[in-house]
Amino acid sequence: MGKDFVLKGNICYSKSAKELALVADGYLVCEEGLCTGVFQQLPQQYQHLPLEDCTGKMILPGLVDIHVHAPQYAFRCLGMDMELIEWLSHYAFPEEAKYKDLAYAEKAYGSFVEDLRQGPNTRAAVFATCHVPASLLLMDMLEASGLVTLVGKVNMDRNSHPQLQESGPEASARDTEAWVSLILTEKAYHNTAPILTPRFIPSCSDGLMVKLKEIQQKYGLPVQSHLSENKGEIAWVRELCPDAANYSAAYDYFGLFGGSDTPTIMAHCVWMEEEELALMAERQVFVAHCPQSNMNLASGIAPIRRFLDRGIPVGLGSDVAGGCHTSIFRAMSDAIQVSKLYWRLLDQNEAPLAIEEAFYLGTMGGGAFFGKVGSFLPSYEFDALVIDDSKLEAPYDLSLNERLARIIYDPDRCILERKFVRGRDVLHKAAL
Amino acid sequence: MGKDFVLKGNICYSKSAKELALVADGYLVCEEGLCTGVFQQLPQQYQHLPLEDCTGKMILPGLVDIHVHAPQYAFRCLGMDMELIEWLSHYAFPEEAKYKDLAYAEKAYGSFVEDLRQGPNTRAAVFATCHVPASLLLMDMLEASGLVTLVGKVNMDRNSHPQLQESGPEASARDTEAWVSLILTEKAYHNTAPILTPRFIPSCSDGLMVKLKEIQQKYGLPVQSHLSENKGEIAWVRELCPDAANYSAAYDYFGLFGGSDTPTIMAHCVWMEEEELALMAERQVFVAHCPQSNMNLASGIAPIRRFLDRGIPVGLGSDVAGGCHTSIFRAMSDAIQVSKLYWRLLDQNEAPLAIEEAFYLGTMGGGAFFGKVGSFLPSYEFDALVIDDSKLEAPYDLSLNERLARIIYDPDRCILERKFVRGRDVLHKAAL
Repeated sequence: MGKDFVLKGNICYSKSAKELALVADGYLVCEEGLCTGVFQQLPQQYQHLPLEDCTGKMILPGLVDIHVHAPQYAFRCLGMDMELIEWLSHYAFPEEAKYKDLAYAEKAYGSFVEDLRQGPNTRAAVFATCHVPASLLLMDMLEASGLVTLVGKVNMDRNSHPQLQESGPEASARDTEAWVSLILTEKAYHNTAPILTPRFIPSCSDGLMVKLKEIQQKYGLPVQSHLSENKGEIAWVRELCPDAANYSAAYDYFGLFGGSDTPTIMAHCVWMEEEELALMAERQVFVAHCPQSNMNLASGIAPIRRFLDRGIPVGLGSDVAGGCHTSIFRAMSDAIQVSKLYWRLLDQNEAPLAIEEAFYLGTMGGGAFFGKVGSFLPSYEFDALVIDDSKLEAPYDLSLNERLARIIYDPDRCILERKFVRGRDVLHKAAL
Repeated sequence: MGKDFVLKGNICYSKSAKELALVADGYLVCEEGLCTGVFQQLPQQYQHLPLEDCTGKMILPGLVDIHVHAPQYAFRCLGMDMELIEWLSHYAFPEEAKYKDLAYAEKAYGSFVEDLRQGPNTRAAVFATCHVPASLLLMDMLEASGLVTLVGKVNMDRNSHPQLQESGPEASARDTEAWVSLILTEKAYHNTAPILTPRFIPSCSDGLMVKLKEIQQKYGLPVQSHLSENKGEIAWVRELCPDAANYSAAYDYFGLFGGSDTPTIMAHCVWMEEEELALMAERQVFVAHCPQSNMNLASGIAPIRRFLDRGIPVGLGSDVAGGCHTSIFRAMSDAIQVSKLYWRLLDQNEAPLAIEEAFYLGTMGGGAFFGKVGSFLPSYEFDALVIDDSKLEAPYDLSLNERLARIIYDPDRCILERKFVRGRDVLHKAAL
């Protein structure tokens, strides 16, 4: 198949948070890595293009993970009997310290990248560690995978593991600028780009935050960090930043809380004050909603309906290894389930997520951080999955809506047959 | 392999709710369908037995599902945008009405039974429908699968779907007694037995409950039903039974709430009063904890720690199709996750479930309803899984504890290689 082609099959995608488009036996046209459109009948002008006949299969946009820790993949599913701060110091930090060793990083990141390549996600915003060589190695591997990713060398110069912590604001900033410069001068990445990644307020000194803002502005970098995941963490931030009105304000003080020049993802946002929501909406800060992680670390349930009602952009995060599963299908069903508990147990004014909303969050919602991504609307980047869901059979005919629901709740019985990112099949490279 | 044999591998099982036994490269001896014991060195007297060498694999007890609706398997993952009562009338009852048609039942139950046979559960307490022929067909199929199951023809003579509801207490009781009699006189089941199954108070008239108690006593049947799943349901029971102090008392009034002559499973138990817990403990009524269903139908979170602290027996239920997944591995991780939310959001005096507790609940906890089942302690029935977990690799060596955790949180990457029920391999029948 060449650069431009047509997929035929059962096409499902979001047009908005509330509107799901379902086209049985439709045609999806890809030209120069972008969606031309979805058609029930293939227009004359595309009939010369190669046609990949996936009749009977489901064709969905690629999934988008806007919060995942690559070095934590190695210990996913393990050690989840602690809350955040204790878990970081007992499990996450000691594991991340190992990535000083490039041989270890190559082995561990190799498994992570191969898992992503074979799974349903096509995009990810990734935390690496604070090690420049290992972070570049991860970016090389992700570039080779064909996925589109934003990768952050992590900044952390206080309150961390002694084997991991950077030695001060100057050293952390110098390494970070060296990392960005190397990417700009020596790497020719097409699919991989740097994202500034102050870990979270407790592990970044004020001096470091000032320097990171300078780097952010100099290179026009997007930003990712963590916000209000855990009550103990929030109390700690209050101690560390007594002048900040809240956790968001602690980032905002340094100019690292969104706005059109500083597109930002904040992971978790479980325990938010109303003023913080207003600021997030104004600055269009993305929430990375990580429902499974918020259960595993006993953090709570993020008020997603409140975010959506206020126009705050929201995507889904696997948050491996706070979460166990890389697939954003799992995050979709987790998001629905915890939203029902939120409604039942905390606030019956906040309606649970409908399935089409969760699907939107895991495709178009998070995709918006990458541009026109996560839908098959015209001019969106062509990220597409072809899924054989025939093992999810029923004793009666299922509608496309029902088949989509089954894929979301039980993806492990499905076979991912093709996976296109920007129009290239990353599962079957030989074919392209 | 003959009737008596030895498995060699990494053996993990519960000795109690708190004590997990892990024996690397151990020997598990089966004699006449029962566990003889677990040994680090194989004693002389068993060295003549056939040895199945599963070195490197994980060997666990079979999992036990004490609450699942066979006819709802057909629509699992679908239509979960409603709470219980609405969901029953819109989805569950219309689907169950189809099982009047034996050809439909054969197709639908065929998929359900094959799913169970291939999955990690070895025992189940199953709701069928109110149709005698289809319920017997299901029992025939389950018997042929080699799994050990309790199956209930459902009783429901009020407040149900017109196509489904039985026509009164006499008709319901007559059909139920005919069903039990047929099993006793015409069936020679080894692995399948009847369990009395009044659906729940709202769908069973007082007259029917009186007759069911008579049938229960006459045939010495165990009982399964539903209890306190949803707030609307509880309010409805209060209207229907104004004299009952609570929902449990409404069953107890008819003698259908446990005790040594009436072993009983009550599914859900989400919203329980303290006096109900005392009665459950006294009568040793089993709680079927169905965490995923309780999320999907926005019911809430059952207070499992309270049950355990009071000595109430607890097992896990998939509750398909309130739950989406038949595997009790999924119920284990769901149970841990919701217990963390319970602790975080509702009551910080109720500690979350540890992973070994969830493993216990899904094996030995529910297994106790079937007798000495769900462990490899001496004289327990030999239900065992041999699992290849090599795809869950890590860049470092994992302990058996860690491997077990990964299997529980990410079972879909594992391969179930052997599955023994009472010493017979139900995956590879030819081998035995």
